Amino acid sequence: MNSGGGINETHDSGLRSWVAGAHDAKTDFPLQNLPLGVFRRRATREWRLGTRLGETIVDIAAMCSLELLPDAGSDARLLSAPTLNPLMAAGQSAWQRLRASLSLALRDAGIAAERARAHSSDILVPVVDAELRIAADIGDYTDFYASIHHATNVGAMFRPDNPLLPNYRWVPIGYHGRASSIVISGTPVRRPRGQTAPATGSDRPQFGPTGRLDYEAELGFFVGSANTLGARIPIETAPMHLFGACLLNDWSARDIQAWEYQPLGPFLAKNFASTLSPWIITWEALAPFRTAAMQRAEGDPAPLPYLFSAEDQRSGALNVDVTVELRSAGMRQRGEPPARLSQSNAAGLYWTPAQMLTHHASNGCNLRPGDLLGSGTISGASKESQGCLLELTNRGALPVQLPGNETRAFLEDGDEVVMRARCTAPGFVTIGFGECRGIIDPAGEP
Amino acid sequence: MNSGGGINETHDSGLRSWVAGAHDAKTDFPLQNLPLGVFRRRATREWRLGTRLGETIVDIAAMCSLELLPDAGSDARLLSAPTLNPLMAAGQSAWQRLRASLSLALRDAGIAAERARAHSSDILVPVVDAELRIAADIGDYTDFYASIHHATNVGAMFRPDNPLLPNYRWVPIGYHGRASSIVISGTPVRRPRGQTAPATGSDRPQFGPTGRLDYEAELGFFVGSANTLGARIPIETAPMHLFGACLLNDWSARDIQAWEYQPLGPFLAKNFASTLSPWIITWEALAPFRTAAMQRAEGDPAPLPYLFSAEDQRSGALNVDVTVELRSAGMRQRGEPPARLSQSNAAGLYWTPAQMLTHHASNGCNLRPGDLLGSGTISGASKESQGCLLELTNRGALPVQLPGNETRAFLEDGDEVVMRARCTAPGFVTIGFGECRGIIDPAGEP
Repeated sequence: MNSGGGINETHDSGLRSWVAGAHDAKTDFPLQNLPLGVFRRRATREWRLGTRLGETIVDIAAMCSLELLPDAGSDARLLSAPTLNPLMAAGQSAWQRLRASLSLALRDAGIAAERARAHSSDILVPVVDAELRIAADIGDYTDFYASIHHATNVGAMFRPDNPLLPNYRWVPIGYHGRASSIVISGTPVRRPRGQTAPATGSDRPQFGPTGRLDYEAELGFFVGSANTLGARIPIETAPMHLFGACLLNDWSARDIQAWEYQPLGPFLAKNFASTLSPWIITWEALAPFRTAAMQRAEGDPAPLPYLFSAEDQRSGALNVDVTVELRSAGMRQRGEPPARLSQSNAAGLYWTPAQMLTHHASNGCNLRPGDLLGSGTISGASKESQGCLLELTNRGALPVQLPGNETRAFLEDGDEVVMRARCTAPGFVTIGFGECRGIIDPAGEP
Repeated sequence: MNSGGGINETHDSGLRSWVAGAHDAKTDFPLQNLPLGVFRRRATREWRLGTRLGETIVDIAAMCSLELLPDAGSDARLLSAPTLNPLMAAGQSAWQRLRASLSLALRDAGIAAERARAHSSDILVPVVDAELRIAADIGDYTDFYASIHHATNVGAMFRPDNPLLPNYRWVPIGYHGRASSIVISGTPVRRPRGQTAPATGSDRPQFGPTGRLDYEAELGFFVGSANTLGARIPIETAPMHLFGACLLNDWSARDIQAWEYQPLGPFLAKNFASTLSPWIITWEALAPFRTAAMQRAEGDPAPLPYLFSAEDQRSGALNVDVTVELRSAGMRQRGEPPARLSQSNAAGLYWTPAQMLTHHASNGCNLRPGDLLGSGTISGASKESQGCLLELTNRGALPVQLPGNETRAFLEDGDEVVMRARCTAPGFVTIGFGECRGIIDPAGEP
């Protein structure tokens, strides 16, 4: 079994970078992280691969052309592309060469580091001087539903007598989402219009701006290596196909969803926008934070054989803490900081990323480099760990309290939602995912 | 209102082409059709735009570089691309210029035609000497559910007490499908494996090859012009965004579908393969075959205002006859011709293509050039017009009879499904869509 890159020298907690600020106390991006993204310097046109240390972007394409990446010499074509797709397609050994090379060139000692440091003005770009975009061309986006707490809570609202359907404990439930409307953190989200069920006393549905706009806190998993159409991916090798993870806000219009979703699932309630954090945390960077699959409850079945491997059960889940904050227009005006709405952990998902990937390809469906799998809303067992307003407010019935006497049943215009994620493990340096941020714009002209 | 190109000189039934066989009695591809596709000459690598007359492909890229397209001189970049996406993105006037130019250069008289004919060896390729692929990069694929007969028949199987859900008559129901597994006509389809519900007396689902493999006869509609994320597409201008149509076989595994589809819709039951016919029949070519939207039944509501335009009601549906034939391995061995399973017509769909497109973008979802919309299974009111085996066999209970004493409840290995479509209208030359063909390969190694 190949777990997708185990713990190695690049994870050593003793490593420090020569890049200023890389090890500031609160940064998500120390040398042990080395996330991948696509950026351009402001007022230039060329999109380039980069990594991030503290508040600094390191230009990977420039490092490559300056021959500052000791082991990645043969990968120049991959590393000078304007998206991550070629690197993703190249497979795990190319990913490992890049990480190893970046770690050597950006640490505070050694020949490779000295050479890189001598070129610091060529390769370093302050985050504030750069623009970021979605790092990969996403061919297909699939959203799963892997939190049994979320599925149970939502199911109870739509089907009080039958909250968790009989398939849930056997099938990693997922559905296809929309790739075209995936946007990068910071992109405003326009409140969508849509059809909603007839009001009491009416026999006609309405069409207008959603009154129940929500967020969903998820992780996104990027596919690296492809499988051929018709060929499956065994659970044992699934981690080799996983390139990295990011934050995903699966914006949802609950009133549209309730009216449209039978019998073929959510459609316009979701596809008006999905927001991604810009930095992909590689599967290798996440190695120290892999943990046992969720302990199933008494009476829950074991996964079917095609979804079971001892290693996946032992270390296939991700110990990633996900927080959601909200800041309203009023809070910004009053100078108040964002208010935390929830904190949950991806280790509590009922299905591991490898199980989702293996299930997805179990019928021969071909996954391509750059395809995105969403985890589904990451909710835990407690109220404070519910990853969307639908759950937190019990379908709007119990609004959450914000500072300044504001309350929220669902999102209002001007609300900004900020998601963050961090990974901690004893003996390892904490790494983070950065932010996934989006503000609600009014619906605008009819 | 712009209906996406009305009837004009290119539709004139008197036109004849100089290309041999273009007006053979049974061809789908007379000069009045001029479908668009992407082909390459066998044993060459370069994919090129082409059109088709009879059994001959006409190389549009070669015509362009030889300056044989009188009005398309400024479109060289679009016409020499290896996919239709640049042409799709260029908008309706570019599409009209191309059709007008092809019609002039390929008819049996005139200066443009004489010049083209002088280059016939450079621009003509027999169909048998060429290979075809999907003509556009499909960013997102959406499948609708626009036949009320299909929705009612299927609904009655899954929900006998509640066959047609309350939203159906108001919402053009659709869901996102899988773009990666869309294949060209002629590609074998491997029988998928998947989870199916526990058998009677068991408490565990099974995992194995589907026993209820089905086809679905649909039309696919290609999006041409894009809309910006957040901007809607009014029903009045929707036809300007529609580039063309093809046949679509939405292969379905009914046992996998029944177990997985709640609550988020079909997923692995569908995404193992969807087959397209290679030639895109342009929206302009279909102008003579536009017809009134389906007459709604007494008591059915009028479409909501955003889905209503007088012109769409008057002429927004497509009068396209769709047939399905099946030929088993045994029938091939015995030299028997394919057996017709059904014949239906897209004019009987409850929603028009413009309504589907406008609904899709009604929340601001951005549609991109090359995106594909499926109509959903095209079934009519009669038994003979049911577009999938699930309906024809009443969920497998009443197998259909094939020649040679064979019967089919669902598809068996070696079965080949062939869909065809034709358009007829008084005073106009009949045009067709060609074939959408696929044969079932065994599931293979576990």
